[in-house]
Amino acid sequence: MLGVLGTIGSLCLRLGQTIFAVASLLLMCLNTEFYGYTAFCFLVTIMGLVIPWSLTLALADVLSVYAKPPFPPPGILSIVVVGDWVLSLLSLAASCSAASVTDFLLGSGDTFCIGKLCTRYQVAAGSAFLSWLLLLSSTLLNLWLLCSV
Amino acid sequence: MLGVLGTIGSLCLRLGQTIFAVASLLLMCLNTEFYGYTAFCFLVTIMGLVIPWSLTLALADVLSVYAKPPFPPPGILSIVVVGDWVLSLLSLAASCSAASVTDFLLGSGDTFCIGKLCTRYQVAAGSAFLSWLLLLSSTLLNLWLLCSV
Repeated sequence: MLGVLGTIGSLCLRLGQTIFAVASLLLMCLNTEFYGYTAFCFLVTIMGLVIPWSLTLALADVLSVYAKPPFPPPGILSIVVVGDWVLSLLSLAASCSAASVTDFLLGSGDTFCIGKLCTRYQVAAGSAFLSWLLLLSSTLLNLWLLCSV
Repeated sequence: MLGVLGTIGSLCLRLGQTIFAVASLLLMCLNTEFYGYTAFCFLVTIMGLVIPWSLTLALADVLSVYAKPPFPPPGILSIVVVGDWVLSLLSLAASCSAASVTDFLLGSGDTFCIGKLCTRYQVAAGSAFLSWLLLLSSTLLNLWLLCSV
């Protein structure tokens, strides 16, 4: 099935997650002003967890596509599903928190938003949201696979 | 199994969801100051959706416990699982957004927080978070039942 662990589809999903998470992290960390805001620190922490997780699974997918190893046991698949699921919940929470604080800062005309800083933070929150969407797709596809084995 | 659709456990989960959602909604709506903040309006909207959903399913559980009707077909169970799942994602997003904005308002010493208004909003966000936890439990238990039938 397209998109389950060890296929080209899964590799594309993992690369997408990594790219959006890296984009979000870079946009947040271009200067250190995010440091005073809990929601932005939370987003940076979660994106810092999503990147190594998705990269590791992308590497596993590359190996599966080229070396065709035996199908992973349900135990390994369960760990992948639970990991994906926890990270997807955390990235949803982080992106929504960052988006709402940025929206509030933009609406209140805070001096923090000088020089398009808040627009950059909005793009970072949007990028984290897209990363969440792809993580959710991976979770659902692998859960489907787990239910059927 | 304890907590799946049509049992006493499920009824308790549904009542818990309703009580926490009502508490969150009441704490938010005691005055109309929330109206100017997107995150708070989002929380009120989502809690307004969770209450009728959980109440309806609580009524269905009461009927099931006393009248013992035949087991619902997988189609109905799927609708319940998808509805629970969508509402749980939305309530997680809403509670995190409201919590982060309240935290920001408290930290910045905004005039909006005069008279323990922000503490009340924090409790409302926490209440919505507990409602999310119970919704998530219902989703997972019913998904398990759906996978096994």
